[in-house]
Amino acid sequence: MATISAPVAIIMGSQSDWATMRHAAETLDALGIAHDDRIVSAHRTPQRMVEFATGAKAAGFKVVIAGAGGAAHLPGMTASLTPLPVFGVPVESKALSGQDSLLSIVQMPAGIPVGTLAIGRAGAVNAALLAAAVLALSDEGLADRLDAYRARQSAAIAERPAKDEA
Amino acid sequence: MATISAPVAIIMGSQSDWATMRHAAETLDALGIAHDDRIVSAHRTPQRMVEFATGAKAAGFKVVIAGAGGAAHLPGMTASLTPLPVFGVPVESKALSGQDSLLSIVQMPAGIPVGTLAIGRAGAVNAALLAAAVLALSDEGLADRLDAYRARQSAAIAERPAKDEA
Amino acid sequence: MATISAPVAIIMGSQSDWATMRHAAETLDALGIAHDDRIVSAHRTPQRMVEFATGAKAAGFKVVIAGAGGAAHLPGMTASLTPLPVFGVPVESKALSGQDSLLSIVQMPAGIPVGTLAIGRAGAVNAALLAAAVLALSDEGLADRLDAYRARQSAAIAERPAKDEA
Amino acid sequence: MATISAPVAIIMGSQSDWATMRHAAETLDALGIAHDDRIVSAHRTPQRMVEFATGAKAAGFKVVIAGAGGAAHLPGMTASLTPLPVFGVPVESKALSGQDSLLSIVQMPAGIPVGTLAIGRAGAVNAALLAAAVLALSDEGLADRLDAYRARQSAAIAERPAKDEA
Amino acid sequence: MATISAPVAIIMGSQSDWATMRHAAETLDALGIAHDDRIVSAHRTPQRMVEFATGAKAAGFKVVIAGAGGAAHLPGMTASLTPLPVFGVPVESKALSGQDSLLSIVQMPAGIPVGTLAIGRAGAVNAALLAAAVLALSDEGLADRLDAYRARQSAAIAERPAKDEA
Amino acid sequence: MATISAPVAIIMGSQSDWATMRHAAETLDALGIAHDDRIVSAHRTPQRMVEFATGAKAAGFKVVIAGAGGAAHLPGMTASLTPLPVFGVPVESKALSGQDSLLSIVQMPAGIPVGTLAIGRAGAVNAALLAAAVLALSDEGLADRLDAYRARQSAAIAERPAKDEA
Amino acid sequence: MATISAPVAIIMGSQSDWATMRHAAETLDALGIAHDDRIVSAHRTPQRMVEFATGAKAAGFKVVIAGAGGAAHLPGMTASLTPLPVFGVPVESKALSGQDSLLSIVQMPAGIPVGTLAIGRAGAVNAALLAAAVLALSDEGLADRLDAYRARQSAAIAERPAKDEA
Amino acid sequence: MATISAPVAIIMGSQSDWATMRHAAETLDALGIAHDDRIVSAHRTPQRMVEFATGAKAAGFKVVIAGAGGAAHLPGMTASLTPLPVFGVPVESKALSGQDSLLSIVQMPAGIPVGTLAIGRAGAVNAALLAAAVLALSDEGLADRLDAYRARQSAAIAERPAKDEA
Repeated sequence: MATISAPVAIIMGSQSDWATMRHAAETLDALGIAHDDRIVSAHRTPQRMVEFATGAKAAGFKVVIAGAGGAAHLPGMTASLTPLPVFGVPVESKALSGQDSLLSIVQMPAGIPVGTLAIGRAGAVNAALLAAAVLALSDEGLADRLDAYRARQSAAIAERPAKDEA
Repeated sequence: MATISAPVAIIMGSQSDWATMRHAAETLDALGIAHDDRIVSAHRTPQRMVEFATGAKAAGFKVVIAGAGGAAHLPGMTASLTPLPVFGVPVESKALSGQDSLLSIVQMPAGIPVGTLAIGRAGAVNAALLAAAVLALSDEGLADRLDAYRARQSAAIAERPAKDEA
Repeated sequence: MATISAPVAIIMGSQSDWATMRHAAETLDALGIAHDDRIVSAHRTPQRMVEFATGAKAAGFKVVIAGAGGAAHLPGMTASLTPLPVFGVPVESKALSGQDSLLSIVQMPAGIPVGTLAIGRAGAVNAALLAAAVLALSDEGLADRLDAYRARQSAAIAERPAKDEA
Repeated sequence: MATISAPVAIIMGSQSDWATMRHAAETLDALGIAHDDRIVSAHRTPQRMVEFATGAKAAGFKVVIAGAGGAAHLPGMTASLTPLPVFGVPVESKALSGQDSLLSIVQMPAGIPVGTLAIGRAGAVNAALLAAAVLALSDEGLADRLDAYRARQSAAIAERPAKDEA
Repeated sequence: MATISAPVAIIMGSQSDWATMRHAAETLDALGIAHDDRIVSAHRTPQRMVEFATGAKAAGFKVVIAGAGGAAHLPGMTASLTPLPVFGVPVESKALSGQDSLLSIVQMPAGIPVGTLAIGRAGAVNAALLAAAVLALSDEGLADRLDAYRARQSAAIAERPAKDEA
Repeated sequence: MATISAPVAIIMGSQSDWATMRHAAETLDALGIAHDDRIVSAHRTPQRMVEFATGAKAAGFKVVIAGAGGAAHLPGMTASLTPLPVFGVPVESKALSGQDSLLSIVQMPAGIPVGTLAIGRAGAVNAALLAAAVLALSDEGLADRLDAYRARQSAAIAERPAKDEA
Repeated sequence: MATISAPVAIIMGSQSDWATMRHAAETLDALGIAHDDRIVSAHRTPQRMVEFATGAKAAGFKVVIAGAGGAAHLPGMTASLTPLPVFGVPVESKALSGQDSLLSIVQMPAGIPVGTLAIGRAGAVNAALLAAAVLALSDEGLADRLDAYRARQSAAIAERPAKDEA
Repeated sequence: MATISAPVAIIMGSQSDWATMRHAAETLDALGIAHDDRIVSAHRTPQRMVEFATGAKAAGFKVVIAGAGGAAHLPGMTASLTPLPVFGVPVESKALSGQDSLLSIVQMPAGIPVGTLAIGRAGAVNAALLAAAVLALSDEGLADRLDAYRARQSAAIAERPAKDEA
């Protein structure tokens, strides 16, 4: 894997996960953080996963965001193969609504952490924000942009519910 | 991995899983099936897992029994790396009693199957019996031993409950 | 039951399960494995189930794939009546989304195994693939076809998400 | 199966279920209702189950109480083989505390009912009381005894909590 | 409550439960069993419930079928106020899909039984069939009709799935 | 926060919660109880929450109704900052149907209570009714209106299900 | 029921619930609030429950705290029979750890509210504190005592964990 | 809050959480990372929480690890008040085994992320390792120590289960 300039990798188990993970991508975009988006299936392309994860640090990534659903092994396996922080997004699964995804990602054994976010879109947005918070520790410009993002977010909350929208 | 003579590999994520997986080993022993028991942690020894799984068929194994708990990735990742049938045993976890183990093992995406057994000891026994049923398809002697095992099992069920044992 | 030439039986509890179990049938078709598809209700046709299961081996079947939903007794009862390997597919139920189906199939007591797959379509596909893996142990041609199937599957995973499909 | 004089059969999947099912037996004893207690494993003695269930009505039973745990198929399979009312008791299982037992018993498909009681001891007591209520429909003496039982039960509830027992 | 001639009362907590409970009514109709259908809300008409339940036996009912959803107290409270057998139908609730209904009905304490059926339509059909099985204990004509009903049900199960219906 | 004349504050975490919380507002309207409806996000406007909650009593509120979904912290945090009674409404969440909302609100540690209502619309209606019951303790006119409300509610329950509505 | 001077009634379904509900009693004692503690079983003493609940307001109670486990109907049925605010405490049940108790209490239909607290001891303490918050709305002395209680509670939280207590 | 030299704050809701959170502290110790351990109760000391969280960045912290159980609001509320990355540890709760803690922490709405780890001890260890991974992005010495820690961890996994330890 060639060295690349994006600090964040967004990986996902299948094309269908993009509907969720695009919210991570868009949030990083809004914060001006470059990202590299890939499909890496732990189960159907395990060698690709091993290559990606073992080479992620050398490739220049700082943070990996991994989304997967069902028996979601991608975040945990990636974490086992890289020293980089890995944030996991449980994609909402059909039958079990992401409860399987959540438990498969969050219940990692002592030794290999995955910082897990909420099921679905909110989790994807928040994985991006958490990655931003990590990167902002050594990037003041980003810290300022993140502060501004959160301030805009707070300011956008109306004082009163719009009663005709319900 | 050198070629070995056991048709069944029993792998597990940690030493603590042996308390469960030994029941698979003992059941195979009772049926006269050789087995090779290893600790292979998907998360803490991922390279060992890759080596084991990619070499399992060449090493002469026919069936892999994999036990793990919590975010149990070992059975599914092994299945992604070998064409052999893989049977998964969800080890009972502390907080969630194996519900996380079960979902992490059974909810595999289309394409990579893990035949999943019950949580805990019963699952370990049954993984061995299922492996035996598979091997018996091409081993009449084993088929006879398995029939005898099941007949003994049925015969051991008393007609009436022993009322002073309760 | 007359001797038949298909190595795999696909049985299901009701007509409505076909929407799920057809994915097992289609996967076997793709691998060139003959199969015999039947409706066998554990509850509404228990005698038919007993006859099928007790005669399955003599009829020439090697593997049974059984799908059922709710209080899904078909896979386990079939397994109790045949020495053949039985793979169970939890069909997604209406109220509980297949959680009842899954537990009714997977939580078998020690002594009678059912190798259980995921809830719904993925489970049906995977039951077929697991049956193929079992049959491939003594059929090199099938082993090659299964390897090719999996290679095609891996190759079909794009490197990057198609961003306008989401 | 010879004709017998007990109106209630208590069947259970294994010896270990007696610790739960004895509460059904004791409750029937307290109401002066004869019962016949048997171990009938749906999985390990399926033929015994078929014989028992298909012959239960001819043998003179009026009601069947069936207790089982885990993938609990005994109540439902018995119900599929007899026109008698069947009441199911989910025995508390180790890993899942009887949630698997409950769903395996109660979620029967339309066509074959099992009247399901609570998990564990309370369910066993109540299966006996429900059997008694059914039998009392055509037995005034029993109806009186059941009324008396319930009246004693109500009278035994103190008005105030005993504060030194806690 | 005047004496009435129907052996079965079908009660439900609200008008919206009729969509489920009508399947109990239709099943009783198919078996030629008269029934009396009422809305009795444990929470919104508690006095009506007390009057109904305490008078149900004197009114000539033999069996009560009670359907309710959410914190479903109607079956259990009715059972506490009548010696008649009570069969409970958990109506599928909006947020929790009837899991709350099921637990609220089935987990009765020792002393007051409710024979609980499956969540939703299947449970309603089966409550009727269970009531029929109870009534058939002292009604040979009904026993014959019930046998015929079950025989027709079995006969209606095709041998093979209709493959163009899926 | 200026003193205001409404005895009940309805607060919610976001605009989207209004679809649920409006049912609290409408129920209070029906009982002639003034209310003040606000969006107060525990997470996105934490300072607004602190200000609101610490000032709620001085502002003249008697009861706070707080609705939120997912990791629903608003009811509990508000309760930690005011001595007023706080009633929590778990808003139905997308993936987990409000199970997360419910547990996040109800499982408060000893010391800070939140009186929790049902998930969704029923909970919102009932939060209003519970607030009314509290206020009615010192307002006889309201007590009468509440009695009348409940009497109308009971009277609106038909004796028989409308069979063509199902 | 004669008029009594305690503002709070603590009712519970059985003697065994006292181990939980005593924490409500002790918390009220600590706040100087009189309470009347009773065993009222919805199922085993339904008439006692009806009498208590319908007479609770006339007897002078202001708030009812009701604890029960399993299919916990006492809080909801009491709420259906009194206009007083009712706070429910889900007692931890054996098999399901209070999940059944919680859902049976909290998932009340629109129209009859029960303000539900946490499962077990924390819920009992908090039911008392919520009752106190309600009574404090019209009792300044109590409001002061409740403020002091909460201030003591906050002050008792050490700044740092005692590291040798773990 | 004065500026301090530790990069990691470990906060927890109560003294009893230390039994879990000490594993985070010990893991940081093993990696040579200073930490500051505090009890900060979201519910019982909300002002202390606000002060801590709003001042955490200025005080020099880089990462906050927050552990709490039940309706666990501490991680999410802290995250709402600081731009620093917050990692949450669900402490195992008594009745619900940490399922409530997990959902209360992980299901944060879009906008405020908490990177959530596993329930209990494993989660505490992993929160420390994740914090280390974050800090190692700008500290090569720590990166080396973390690599060594993981290498030792892998090396400590025996090849074979010790069969007399089970």
